[in-house]
Formats: sequence, structure tokens, C-alpha cells
Amino acid sequence: MESNYMRGRTNRIEFGVDYYPDQWPRDMWERDFERIRNMGAQSVRMMEFAWAILEPERGRFDFALFDDAIACAANCGLSVVLGTPTATIPNWLYRSAPSVMQIHPSGGSRPFGIRRQPCYNAPAYRDACTQIVRAVGEHFGANPAVVGWQIDNEIGHEGSDRCVCEHCRAQWTEWLRATYGIPAAMNEAWGTVFWSQTYASFDDVELPASDMHLVHNSGLLLDYYRFMSDSAVRHASAQADILRTYIPDSAWISTNLYAPPTGTVIDMEDLNAKMDFPGYDNYPVWGDMDEPLPWYFNAYALSYIRGLKDTGNYTIFEQISGFQGHTCLGYRPNEKEMISFTHQAIALGADRLFYFRWRTAAWAQEQLCSGILDTDNEDNDRLRAITCNIATRSAEYNRFAHLPFEAQACLVYDRDNSRLVKFQHLSRGLKRHIGMIAEAGYDQEMTRSFAPFSIFGVNADVKSARSVDLSRYRIISLNVYQMTDPAFVRRLEAWVQEGGTLILGWRTGARTTDNHNSAKALPGEFSQLSGVRISASESLNETRVGVRIGCIPVQGEVWADVLEPVTACVLARYSGKKKFYAGKPAITENRYGAGRVFYVGTSLNPAGVFLLYRSLFRKAGVPHRFAGLGLEVVRRRCQDGSEVEVVVNHTDRAKWYRCNRIPAWDFTLLPL
Amino acid sequence: MESNYMRGRTNRIEFGVDYYPDQWPRDMWERDFERIRNMGAQSVRMMEFAWAILEPERGRFDFALFDDAIACAANCGLSVVLGTPTATIPNWLYRSAPSVMQIHPSGGSRPFGIRRQPCYNAPAYRDACTQIVRAVGEHFGANPAVVGWQIDNEIGHEGSDRCVCEHCRAQWTEWLRATYGIPAAMNEAWGTVFWSQTYASFDDVELPASDMHLVHNSGLLLDYYRFMSDSAVRHASAQADILRTYIPDSAWISTNLYAPPTGTVIDMEDLNAKMDFPGYDNYPVWGDMDEPLPWYFNAYALSYIRGLKDTGNYTIFEQISGFQGHTCLGYRPNEKEMISFTHQAIALGADRLFYFRWRTAAWAQEQLCSGILDTDNEDNDRLRAITCNIATRSAEYNRFAHLPFEAQACLVYDRDNSRLVKFQHLSRGLKRHIGMIAEAGYDQEMTRSFAPFSIFGVNADVKSARSVDLSRYRIISLNVYQMTDPAFVRRLEAWVQEGGTLILGWRTGARTTDNHNSAKALPGEFSQLSGVRISASESLNETRVGVRIGCIPVQGEVWADVLEPVTACVLARYSGKKKFYAGKPAITENRYGAGRVFYVGTSLNPAGVFLLYRSLFRKAGVPHRFAGLGLEVVRRRCQDGSEVEVVVNHTDRAKWYRCNRIPAWDFTLLPL
Amino acid sequence: MESNYMRGRTNRIEFGVDYYPDQWPRDMWERDFERIRNMGAQSVRMMEFAWAILEPERGRFDFALFDDAIACAANCGLSVVLGTPTATIPNWLYRSAPSVMQIHPSGGSRPFGIRRQPCYNAPAYRDACTQIVRAVGEHFGANPAVVGWQIDNEIGHEGSDRCVCEHCRAQWTEWLRATYGIPAAMNEAWGTVFWSQTYASFDDVELPASDMHLVHNSGLLLDYYRFMSDSAVRHASAQADILRTYIPDSAWISTNLYAPPTGTVIDMEDLNAKMDFPGYDNYPVWGDMDEPLPWYFNAYALSYIRGLKDTGNYTIFEQISGFQGHTCLGYRPNEKEMISFTHQAIALGADRLFYFRWRTAAWAQEQLCSGILDTDNEDNDRLRAITCNIATRSAEYNRFAHLPFEAQACLVYDRDNSRLVKFQHLSRGLKRHIGMIAEAGYDQEMTRSFAPFSIFGVNADVKSARSVDLSRYRIISLNVYQMTDPAFVRRLEAWVQEGGTLILGWRTGARTTDNHNSAKALPGEFSQLSGVRISASESLNETRVGVRIGCIPVQGEVWADVLEPVTACVLARYSGKKKFYAGKPAITENRYGAGRVFYVGTSLNPAGVFLLYRSLFRKAGVPHRFAGLGLEVVRRRCQDGSEVEVVVNHTDRAKWYRCNRIPAWDFTLLPL
Repeated sequence: MESNYMRGRTNRIEFGVDYYPDQWPRDMWERDFERIRNMGAQSVRMMEFAWAILEPERGRFDFALFDDAIACAANCGLSVVLGTPTATIPNWLYRSAPSVMQIHPSGGSRPFGIRRQPCYNAPAYRDACTQIVRAVGEHFGANPAVVGWQIDNEIGHEGSDRCVCEHCRAQWTEWLRATYGIPAAMNEAWGTVFWSQTYASFDDVELPASDMHLVHNSGLLLDYYRFMSDSAVRHASAQADILRTYIPDSAWISTNLYAPPTGTVIDMEDLNAKMDFPGYDNYPVWGDMDEPLPWYFNAYALSYIRGLKDTGNYTIFEQISGFQGHTCLGYRPNEKEMISFTHQAIALGADRLFYFRWRTAAWAQEQLCSGILDTDNEDNDRLRAITCNIATRSAEYNRFAHLPFEAQACLVYDRDNSRLVKFQHLSRGLKRHIGMIAEAGYDQEMTRSFAPFSIFGVNADVKSARSVDLSRYRIISLNVYQMTDPAFVRRLEAWVQEGGTLILGWRTGARTTDNHNSAKALPGEFSQLSGVRISASESLNETRVGVRIGCIPVQGEVWADVLEPVTACVLARYSGKKKFYAGKPAITENRYGAGRVFYVGTSLNPAGVFLLYRSLFRKAGVPHRFAGLGLEVVRRRCQDGSEVEVVVNHTDRAKWYRCNRIPAWDFTLLPL
Repeated sequence: MESNYMRGRTNRIEFGVDYYPDQWPRDMWERDFERIRNMGAQSVRMMEFAWAILEPERGRFDFALFDDAIACAANCGLSVVLGTPTATIPNWLYRSAPSVMQIHPSGGSRPFGIRRQPCYNAPAYRDACTQIVRAVGEHFGANPAVVGWQIDNEIGHEGSDRCVCEHCRAQWTEWLRATYGIPAAMNEAWGTVFWSQTYASFDDVELPASDMHLVHNSGLLLDYYRFMSDSAVRHASAQADILRTYIPDSAWISTNLYAPPTGTVIDMEDLNAKMDFPGYDNYPVWGDMDEPLPWYFNAYALSYIRGLKDTGNYTIFEQISGFQGHTCLGYRPNEKEMISFTHQAIALGADRLFYFRWRTAAWAQEQLCSGILDTDNEDNDRLRAITCNIATRSAEYNRFAHLPFEAQACLVYDRDNSRLVKFQHLSRGLKRHIGMIAEAGYDQEMTRSFAPFSIFGVNADVKSARSVDLSRYRIISLNVYQMTDPAFVRRLEAWVQEGGTLILGWRTGARTTDNHNSAKALPGEFSQLSGVRISASESLNETRVGVRIGCIPVQGEVWADVLEPVTACVLARYSGKKKFYAGKPAITENRYGAGRVFYVGTSLNPAGVFLLYRSLFRKAGVPHRFAGLGLEVVRRRCQDGSEVEVVVNHTDRAKWYRCNRIPAWDFTLLPL
Repeated sequence: MESNYMRGRTNRIEFGVDYYPDQWPRDMWERDFERIRNMGAQSVRMMEFAWAILEPERGRFDFALFDDAIACAANCGLSVVLGTPTATIPNWLYRSAPSVMQIHPSGGSRPFGIRRQPCYNAPAYRDACTQIVRAVGEHFGANPAVVGWQIDNEIGHEGSDRCVCEHCRAQWTEWLRATYGIPAAMNEAWGTVFWSQTYASFDDVELPASDMHLVHNSGLLLDYYRFMSDSAVRHASAQADILRTYIPDSAWISTNLYAPPTGTVIDMEDLNAKMDFPGYDNYPVWGDMDEPLPWYFNAYALSYIRGLKDTGNYTIFEQISGFQGHTCLGYRPNEKEMISFTHQAIALGADRLFYFRWRTAAWAQEQLCSGILDTDNEDNDRLRAITCNIATRSAEYNRFAHLPFEAQACLVYDRDNSRLVKFQHLSRGLKRHIGMIAEAGYDQEMTRSFAPFSIFGVNADVKSARSVDLSRYRIISLNVYQMTDPAFVRRLEAWVQEGGTLILGWRTGARTTDNHNSAKALPGEFSQLSGVRISASESLNETRVGVRIGCIPVQGEVWADVLEPVTACVLARYSGKKKFYAGKPAITENRYGAGRVFYVGTSLNPAGVFLLYRSLFRKAGVPHRFAGLGLEVVRRRCQDGSEVEVVVNHTDRAKWYRCNRIPAWDFTLLPL
């Protein structure tokens, strides 16, 4: 059965709450569900960590608690979304097969008592997953109150995308054999002649664990990441396949992703192949952050989620309702700001949204993860704010929320290119970590390229190079695209020829799809499109270089490609006394057929981005308007066919836009 | 036999020196002891690392060296304090049972050749300790020159308070069984329903080693810390029990602690239960510090030591005599400053004090730990300064040093609450490490609460919540007291009712004694006493928030509780453009019976502390006086019943106090 | 057969290129060699990582590829230098003996797929090395095109100087037995009485792996470093011995070292004992550095290499030709600056120089290590710059390059003293790491002491205390020389007596050759020479102290020895309000016989160095001249017996010197 975005869709935005009946006394449930219903929610999500309850001993299943909870919710008029409980394992599974636990390349092995410990390649875990998913599918699948399913929970998060255990080692050999056929092909692709790395057999290739100062072969690392991705994808897809055999056609299946978008090695398009639509856990501020993520980073991340399936919108499985952290806290958004995260998520394509979570757990790892209610269970400002928002603003949301998002521009990312900079980061300016494990450098560069669309109110999608349908867009932005697929370049050439505007970022075209250095002068495959040649490059790390756009001084960061125009004309030049390439071109524009190609040799600072894109949008003839700092303007098609501007104020003071006042953290709809 | 503080006490302060006869040629001893005697000392401490000499092979004991050294010291008129040598193990013990070595949760295992390697739960170590302590007790116990004993050395220091070895694993199961009886009780206390952590048997619960980004269950961690503490306490207590059977009633037993006070997980009150009085190693500057610890931190630490036993004063087993470090050095106090650390220690309750050490070792790990003499053995300024100080100032010390310390105020800490913030630190402002292992965040907050007493010359004790006798005090300060014992709150209520002044810090009352989130609105059990309600909280990490006390702007750090007065009145409000809670109360005062309760929602900066406490002491009717920056004023009762002010100048220039000039780093006694 | 510097020498500078025929299609070779020849090179280096090609299975050798390549090169008029391929191992060796892999004391073990993984003490590796070196020696030794040999590659680099594997453990026992004879001697030397570390047998002494916060015994650590050094030296020397039996007398043997000079524990004089001359890989900028190393650091490093053999000059096996890094890049030198590194290397004694490498590898770990050509194989500015430089400047180089370097001054380092501060760094100001593993603190202090010679144009050598021939020099500089050999002090005394000028740095004389604290008052053995006594010391870490030279304020860093003149007079005093030793002497001068001894108690900042040395050179009657910032002036003897000044401009703008204009990054020869 094919995935189908229309499953579960209505013509209005749906709200829900994440609720854990297993964590509260039975006599609280009814009152809780009533209050959830009164808040304006139609649905509750539950069960995604409850394996130990559902299968207290191997093969002995106990569905009583959730049967009861689902019935209780349904009686209160709430539909139910169930999670498959495979993101943690019960103690008996660990006891019977301790080797199911992941071993991270950094050396740490995961203990029992946390989450996402098991290895996707461990046979004992795979078998147990099959059993429990079959069991819950069979038991709950036909329950009419159960309208949707979440597969596992945040697959690959917190470093669980990488493992070097014995089970992975065994599968790795098979993966290499399937990929390369004969060792010679692998040796060739990896350049193992270097440093005497040649392998006689696939069996001899170990997983890249500790590296002691020196990094592993780049071909091996890239393939390891691909292999790890395939392992996680197989885990998720297998569950979806099982569930489909038990659930009605009306019920949907999804899985919840997390930030940063390319923080793991998993190909999230692959992971969503069997899902009906993408899902996301939306926490614009978390843990010990001193301020929320920039709103345009969230815009990028939400657009990335939306772009994972061609069919349209997405579900928020966990929407922040308070403030959160496991061991440390930070910035506290007030209720209005917290609600503004909802406005943004819906403006950018969410049409279903569960608040995490009804009430703060009293104990264990998430004592500091605030729910809508505190553990004291009293009505509070957060509950009042959410209730009020649903009651008074749903009509506005419903005008557009379930309709597809239309975009004129598209930021194109590439999974292999995001993997590459995880181990070969080129510049310390591209080495950004969130927490101990998630790498965010690539996403940071993507955000820099996405921000101008957000800032100028140009609706933009985020799509992968392999899935983007160029014909939908007038502007394509492509950055840090080192590993280059010539077929994609040919498609881009045709599209530019027809009038498209292409923005190429630094290092574009530097490698082949095998990650070999390009045998052509850089920018390699993009030489003709860009009309420039890269004569030299410098890594700026945390330093900056002056750039002059016309006579206005701005700055470049992270990297500097020094350009030599061939057919292009110069838009900006490097400046500064210390650089030998001061005076050399930094940004160029090349007319190509009916279109234009911009090559941007550095990572511009905000002033530079502003200047460049204002001019670029003008040349491309794309309507744009700088709404003002902190104002996000998104165009959405409404049910009546009209278009509106959804204007979200991301600041703590009122702002004016087109003679309309938008209060702090509020949003408004303006007809076009 | 009960512990007895009066053991070994005289009516004058005693001085001694740490001396290692095993480290110097026999022909140097007599001259050394004579010089020590000439310096003014009455005693030498020795033997605390000498296991390899005392028992060169298993079961073969050799006491000759120390018999000789004790006799030699006694001939020179010096009494002797002996350490049990269990802080390092001889090579034969390691060889015969390598598994005695600790394994730290961070992954490191301890090698032979350093100290404090063995695990308190390793049977081979426990047995060997019993044998050696029996042997030294039996052999030296009745020697009339031996007046006191030190158990082990700095138990739990340098990370040795935590171990996850196989022996601990076995004991842990027993500890859990003894604590909870049935697994269900443990599951309930820990909330193991969360993330499917439920255990069927105590045998299944592992020790919390590596955690790979995610933290372990908070209930498990807390119990692990309690278990580790019990293990260390059993180790020390067993030795005291053995020694008591061999030593005369006049000989005393103690053990030496170290800074920071709550840096380990060990309950130091428990550890001192079998001791006659507490002991401390006093190094206000050590290793690579660029300046000494603030004098009020030392005041807090020394007061904490004094407060570990109800009966009174304490011994300094190691008093800094030069400058020190293992691999790196730092700030060099001059001789006057070095002596000032002696003044302070005595002012705050020390009545016996050994200088570390007679002469710097030529080799091994402490080549950079300066003794009184350098390795060159020549008379130097340090020896002259100590000699002069003992000769000329002992009369002043002796007026008060052996009498109990009387205090009007008490800072109350709590062992479990200090453990909690080691793994759930709430704010980066509360995550402070000394070296690689010791956590000092809790002590930093305690110091902030203790400093105002020091600064305003109000004698204050430091006592644990479980041992404090409220009736002795007029002011009680209680901060970061999250895990709340309702019985203690009831006692506080009665005490405030009678006129006490209670200062509550942020997060007070947030948890139960099981570390569950309070089921009551915060500040939970303290709601009535404080007359406030916490409407929101923010973690400030390293940032700051404005606070206005009246119209004077000060600042809050670490954390901000936003207060809603119920019956309390407002003393200070938050300020600042960026905070949604600007204008909301930050500090309140509540009249309760004849007393007052202050709730301080943030960690005030020094200006804020100064303003708040000046006003608070006035209201509480407690005599106080700001002596000036760097002046510490302590009141002590003298032998003749009069009271004096001991005024210590902690600065490098002369200061005036009550028309008296106190030279740099000097002290004076002023009658009241 | 003895090593012989004259092997391979001509009367002109030789240029070459590092070329990897195994990494490029056969049909590219001839064109490559032609272009290399056209560039002006006479030689190519190859084969140093090619074990897997040379011996694809154990005992099956295949020399075809390199036979072909050597013939091809020779046909193009190029001589060939071959590397023994033992810096990586082929997979079959790893498979057959996995325990050959090193285990670093930090815990990491080295995986297959990187370089320098095998342990020098692993029998399987040692045997395999013997076989392959014999095989290549036998096969290629007599080939007339092969003019020289490089042993292994960068021995000890990237942490491979330390290993704690089982094979090392076994050898360690033997090393200790050979060194000490009986355990009692070792116990005495290490002071194992401390902390009960006494060993009954050499078998009981473990290698110092993890230390968990506490450091190991300093005697043990020092011996471990000596043992590791001996292991690496035996590895290199064994290869040289084998090769000598196969190669003609005209062929030379060397090995390539790397920066920083004392970054590893290996005694590089020992390592070069069997070599004909020293070799170096010269990368003044590498990886993610934001700017190149200071030119006077490179001057120190190159002089250190030159000083490793008494006989004279050295070869650069890898000279930077572009910009480089494994995973991250940084500062990009332009072509002129890149060539300036060649000028400096030759000015300071290089007479043979291979550029690394011909063309950038397309794949594997060094994709970002730029060759002369990029992977695109097109002529570029780098090739043009090198070609032009060789063509137009060789005549100037040839006037002096093959003649010995003559120096008036010598900076004396000491291998054991450099090892000591690796684990007992005294001051954070002396704890500098390059990358994760290499310690550069000692080299930083050496550079501070070497810089004044460079800055004032005083030719200086860098020699070890054990090999320096004092009679060659008028000035000797000796710094951080803690472990003091009394025999060397006696030699210095005689030399000063005769008129030498000796500069002693802080901490000089503090220890014995066994690393025991000196039993004499500091500066111990140097007391009479210096005419001072150290009354106190402070570690400044990253702070600074004021120093007044006359009335001019400068600053001291890292450390401060407080001096008491005995026979010396005072040149500078400490200053500053916060230091108790303000006003005390910081620098002294002592007349001793016909000579002078300066004691410098702190690490002076540049202004202080400038003032002190200007005065010092004057007193010593040594010609000196401050050429200006960024100008390096070196005197060299020419073939015709005349002397020239080689003036290198290390800046990006033209400079004037003696009425001559030296363009940016250029050099000139001026007659004297």
C-alpha cells in the first residue's frame, strides 16, 4: 500500500497533547482528558516509550492499560495516536542479549536506563521489534479511536545514528559487498593505494572507531555513514510495513524528527519513504540555551521537514509548551513567545500539532521538561494561553493550514555533502556542535542561505538535490555542494537556460560523487554555468575578510574562494590590508541563456546577505519586501483561492507591517 | 566506646609538623626533631602512606622504622600522631588482587603508583585494611608517645568517592535490597515507568557508568551516591572500631577532610560519627590557582568542618606552609600571608594544627609541594615566620582557641541536595569544577549565602538540615534546598513562629525527599512560611538579570524565581528590558508569628548581598558591623568569660578597625 | 660503515619533488617527470608509504611498479630517493598480528587505515620491517638512479612516540633491568618510598597508562619516555644498518623529522646517529592555523635540525608548496610567501629540498594537502613561482648553500629537560599543545631564547647539552635547564672563566640528573656561576609581572624566580603593586673570570628581550644589528671565502636594510 498524505487530513488544523497514562494514577485520567478536550485539543499521543508495560516478559503482552486509556480518551471525545515503543527496550531484552546495545565510534557504549540504546543491526533487537510492532498493530490497529501511528521516536537522535558494534560489523561487510561487488572497486573508490590501505577482502574492512588524532579514509567514512543511514531506514520501514497490514486505510503513519535537520547521518527522505507525511518535534529553545534559536533557523528547519515529502504539509508531534532540559535549563520564553512558535510552525506548513506534554513528570530523566501543567496539576498561564489561542485563532489558521505551501525559491541541500563536512569540516567556522554529538555546521551554512528568503518574505522550500523539481521554482540556492552529480548540473543548466536564477555557494563543484577531488579546474562541473574559475581558496575559520559590494563594506566568514571571471561580471571584491587576494572578485554574476548564475565565494555576514539578495531578487524579478527585523512574512493560498500574507512577529514589541500593527509575538493575516 | 571531643584537649593551641621519617636518612631525624621542637611544635604526624614499609609482604610486619622514629621524636619532647596507612596499597596487594583498583564512572581505572586507588567494597582491600589497622593498633596503640590517630587520608578525595567496579556492583545489589525490600518500591521511587526502565530484580540494576550524552535516571544516581557514601563511611568506621580496642582512652581518633566541603558524594557527618573531632587539610591556595580562594570561602569551609560534630572545634592535619602543586604551580603567598591562614583557622575553631610538611620531598609526585624547608634543608623565611608566630602569638590564641565557638546564625546545607546538583545542575552557573573531578557548584552557592555573615561580623555555623539545633540560632539561611523534608519544615515553622529569621534561597521546596517534583505549587512545603508563590523560573546560566532593591540596581545570577506575594511583602524586583518578568518580585519578606521569612529568588551579586543583609540583620536585631573589605571579625569567648573580637586582616596593607591598626595579613584581639 | 655527511653532496643546492607513481596512471608519469625536470628539479622522492604494493602478501615481493617509475624518472634525467615503507603496514600484517597496533597512554588504540600505527616493540612488526627493508635494499640498493634513502617517515609523529601495549610492557621490564640492575636502585632513583610505591621486582612495574587526575611517579614517567625513545631509535637504526649492506658508498641515508622539535619524547640525536645528515619536513603553516608560525620559531626549528649532527647542513624532505590540512584548512600563503619559506630554509642550512608534492591526491586522507599542482593537473601560479625561483635564484643559493653554517652563539636544550615539562609543566604558560598530542611548551621557551639571536642577526646554533662544543661559541643560552649535569656545569665554568657569556634562564639548576630536587640552595650547581640565590619563585601561568630594566617597564611571563644577588649585580627588578617581591631583582649579571653570567628569572616579553639582549650583546662584544621587524639576517661563508649576509624579508611589504630594498617575501645577498 502506498503512502498517502491525504490520510487523516481534514480541512482544519488539528491540535493534540502528548499524554502518558502509564505515568499517572488511573483516577486522574478522566479529569485530564476532559481538561485536554476543554483546552481545544482533538487528539492525544501516547505509548512511544511503553515497551516494558506492553510486553513485561518476552512474549507476554499486556494491553490492558492502553486499552483502558484509549477508551477513556475516546469517551472524552479525543482520538488517539500511538507510538511504537521501540525507542527504548525493556530490561528483559537487555538481560537476554546485552550485545544489542550500541557502541558509539567515540568509544562510549550505551547503558540500560537511557533511550535509543539498541543497535538497528542487532538481530535480537530486530526480532523483538518485529514481535512488539506486530503485537501492537494487531491489537490496536483496528481500534477506531486510533487514527494514526508514530514509528519509534526521534530515530537517530543523540548520537544513535552511529554504532560500531559487532552486529554492525557483520552487516557492514554485506553492505560493502552489495555496493561494490569486488574489493578492487572499493579500493579504487576509496583510493586505498594511499598509505597502504588496500583491502584484499570485504571481510577485512573494519568500522571506523577510534582514530587517535588522524582521521580515517574519507571514502570509508562516507560509506560508513551511508551504511548507518540504510540501517536506520530499514528499521523504520520494516515497522511501517508491519503496521500497514493491521491498520485501516484511513489511519496514517509517520515518525518524528528533530533539529538540527542534517545533524545525523540518516537520509531523512529515505526514512520517510514509507511514511504518509513527515513529522517533527519543535523545540526552538531547549536545555541550557541562553536564547532561542533564530527564527529563520526554525524557518529553515520547518521548511526542511515540509520538503521531505513531495505531497505537502507535516505534523508536529511535540510542540514546546514550557521550558525544557534534562540536567540544565536556560532561557524561559513567556507564554506569548511560546505560542508564537505555534504560529510559525503553522505558517510554514504544520497542519497537526501535539503539545509536549500534558503535565511535567515527577521523576526520572525529564523532571525538568516542563509540560503544559506543572507537577502540581493546577491551572496555569500556559494552559490558559494555549486554550485561548486555539479558541480564538483557529479560524485564521484554518483558512490556509491544510493547503499546500507554494514557493518560488528553493534551497537545495545534499545528504552526502552534509555527511562529508562532519569529518572533513574545511573550516572551524563550519564545525558547530549542539550538545556533545550533533553536528550543526552544515545546517548553519544552509540557514545562512535560507535566511534571505525568510527576511525578504520570499516563500522558499528546502529540497534535496536528488528530489528537487526545478520546474517549480524561479530561484535555486546551492551551497557547500562539493560532491557534485553531473546529471544534476545538466538539469540546472537547462533550467537556467530557460530563465532560472541560480545562486552557487563556495566550494561548489569541488568533488565527484565518489568524493574525489574534481579533475577539472574549480568550480568543476559548474565552470560553464558560473563563468568563473577559482584561482585560490582560504579557510577563514573564525576570522573574517572584508568584502565590498559596490562601495559598501561587508564581511565574509568561514571560507573565501578567490574568483577569476571568465564570462561572469564582478559584483563584489575582497578587501583588507592583510589579504593577498584583496581586490580580487568575491561574488560574480553570469548570464547564461535566459537566466543568471551568481557565485558567492564566501559566507556573507547579515549585511552582505541583505545587500546581495535585495539586488538579486530585483534582477530575478521576484517580488520581495523587507518587512523589518523580526517579522516573518509567508504567503499562503486559502480555501477560497485567495492568497494571504501570514505575518509573524518574532519580537517582544509591537511591529507595523503594511499599516497593520502586529502585537509582540503575535501574528496576523493580511489579504494580498 | 563513644567518641569524645575532650580527648587530647589542653587549654592551649597545639602546633605540630607533618614529618616523614621514611623519606629521610636516619641520621637526619634527630636534628630535624630538634629543629621542629625549636620551631615551637609539640607534635609530629607520620605514617599515613607507609603501608609498604609496615607490611613489606603480606602478613610480615615491620615496625622498626616507626618505633625508632617515635622514640626519637619522644626523646626530643614531641608527641606523635599516627595515620593508618590505607590511602595507598603496597604493590604485593595489588599484584595478588588487581581487581581492588577503583573504576571511575568516567571510565578511568586507577593504576598502581598513585594514591586512593582501592575500592572500599573490594573484599581483598577490606581484609587487608583490617589486618594492617589491627597490626598498627596492636603494636603502637599503647605507646605513650602516640597521642592520637588519623584514619586513612583525605577519604574520597580526587574522585575516589565513586567507583563502578564489580565489587561495588555486588554490594550495590545488597544495598538496594536493604533499602527498598522489594523492587516495586524502588521502581516507584525512581519512576522507572519512564522510558521502560522497570526492573524485575535488584540484581538487574547496574551501576551508572558511561552515559553517552544522556543522563541516567535521577533516582538511581541519587541512590548510587548514597551507596558510595555508605561504602566510604563503613571503611573509616571499621578502622576506628579496631583502633579503639588497642588505644588508651586518652588517645584520640580523627580523619582529615579537604576542600571543597561537598565536592564528593560522601556524607561527612556520617564519616565523622566514630571520630572524636573533625579534621581538615587547609590549603587556601593550591596547584595552578592564580590567586588564593576568597577568605570568606575559607571561612565557610572551616565552619563546615567545625559543624560536623556538635561538640566543637577541630584539628588541621595539614596546614599550608609554602606553595604547592603536583604538576603545575601558581600564586605564591608570602610568609605573612601564609601565616594569616593560620590566624583564620584558629579564629574559626582550630585548636590543633600541623604544618605540611617539614621538608620538601626530593622526588616522586610531590616534588613541587613545598614544605616549611626546601630540599636544601637550610633555615628560611618560612621557618622563621612560623617560629616567630608561635612564639609571639600563642598567648593570644590560647585565650580562646580551645573554647567552643558561639554563633547566632547558621547556614544550613543538605547532603542529598548537594548530591542532586552534581548530576542535575539546573544552571551552568551552578556547574563549577575544581580540577577534573570535584564539583564545587553547591559550595559556591553556600559560600554566597555564608559570605554576608563573615562580611558583617556575625558569627555563623554551618550545619546540615538533619543535625542543626535551631534553638541555638536567631538566623537560619537555607538555599538550593530542593529536596525538602516536611518534618524539618515543621521545625522551622515552629522556630520562626517563636521569632526566628529564616532566609530561603531559590528553588527551595521544589522536590520531595525522594527527589520527586513537589506535587504542591512552589515553593511547596515552604509556601506558608514564605508567603509567596513561584509563578515562573529561568535559568540564567552565566548571564545576569537586573534586580532593584528599593531604587538601587544590583544583579542576580545563576537562577531567577519569579515571585507572586501571597502574604509576603516585596523587597526587590527584577528589572531590565529583555526579561518578561521585569518588574516582578525577586525578594520578599513574610511575617510569620514572631519571626520573619525572606525568600530570595536569585543568587545576588555582592552589592545585592550587602544591601539585603544589612537590612535583614537590622530587622532581625542581630548586632552586625561591616568592618571593611578584607577584614574578618569573629567573636570568641575567652577563658576568663569575657568576649573578644578576633580581627584578621586578609589584605596586603594595614587596615583600621575600631581605631586599631591591623598590619597586613595580621590579626588582633579586641575586647568587647 | 660510518655515517658521512659528505655523501651525496655537490657544490650546489639540489631541488626535488615528492612524487607518488603508485597514485597516478602509468600514462601520466613521463609527462609528470618531464614537467618536474622543467621546473628545475633534479630528483624525486617516492615509495615511503608503499608497503602494500611492494609486498602485497607476506613474503611475496613486487618491485615492478617502482622499477618502472625509477627507470622512467631516470630517463627524464631525475635521480630518485626512496623511502622505506614502514610508516604504515599492509592489511595482511595487521590481520595476522592485530596486536602490532600501538595503544596510546591516553587510552586510544590505533586502527588500521591511518599511519604510524604499529608498535616499535611488537615482534611481528619488527620482523616484517627487517624483511621489507632487506628486500627493498637488496632490490633497489644498487640501482644507480637511487641516490639516497629516507628511513620510515616522521618517526614518532602524531603521538606515535608513546605506546603502552603488551609488547612495550615486556620490553620495559628488560629496559629497567638493563638500566638499574637491581630493583633497589630503581626504587631509590624514583623515590618509591613515597606513597608506598616500592617494587619488589622489575616485572611488577607497569607502563604509565591512565592516571585519573593524579599523575604518575615522575621518575617512572621520565624513564618511560627514555625507554620509548630508545625503542624508536632502535627501529630506525636497524633499518639504516640493513640498508648499508646493500647500497653503494655514494648513497646516503637520512630520515625526516617534523615540528615541534621536542614535541615527542624521542632523542633525535640518537635517532640520527646512523644517518648521514638530518632531514626535516618544513611546513611553516599547516591545518587550521590562522597565520603561519612566527619566522623566528621556524628559524629555531631549522637550526635545531641542523644541530642534530655535528657535520653540518640538512635536507628538507617535504617543503610546503601550497596549503595543507587533513580535515580543516586555514591561512593561505600566496606564492611569494610560500617561496620565502624556501629562502629561509636554505639560509639556515638546507642544501637539498623536495617540494611536497607534485599533484594533490584525489582521495583519501590528504585530499586537502595541496601539491604544487591541483588535481586538475593544470599549470598554475605555484608551479610558475617555484620554476622561476629555481631558475633565477639558484646562483645566489649556490654561493653558500653547501658550506657549513658558522655561529657565534648557541642555544642549548636538553632532551630530558624537555621530557620533564611534558608531565610536570610548572606553569600553564609552559603547557602548549599543537593538535591533540604534541606538546610545544618547551619549544616555546626555547624560541623565546632563540629569537633574540635571530632578531639581532647573530648566527646561532641549537645544540643539546650533551653534544655542544662550547669552544665554538662566544654566547651560550641555557633555559628551563632544571635537571642539571654537574659535569656540564664544570665545563661551562671553565668556558666562562675564559671569557664566555652565559645566559641562564629561570629554574636552572633545580634538579639532579635523576630529577631529584637539588639538595643545594637554588640555582643549585649554578650558584657560583650565577652569583645569585633564588629566594622564592612564583608560577605566573597566563598572568604577567612587571619588570623594570633600568627605568623602562617591560613584562615577565610564565614564571618568576626572585633573586638575591650574592656576587652578581642587578640589571632588572620586579615591579607592580600586587606582588610581594616587587622591587626584588629579576635579572642579574655576574662577572666570573673573564666572562659574564646573566641570570634571567622570568620569561621576558618581546620588549624585555630586545632591551636585555641589546645590552648583553654589547657587553659580550658580539656584532649585532636590529634589522627591523620581519627581517632575518644570516651570515654565510661563500665558496670564495668571503662572507655574505642573507637577508630574508618575512613581511608582505618591501623593507630596507643597509640601503638595499628587499621586496616583500624576497631575499637578497649582501657582501660584508
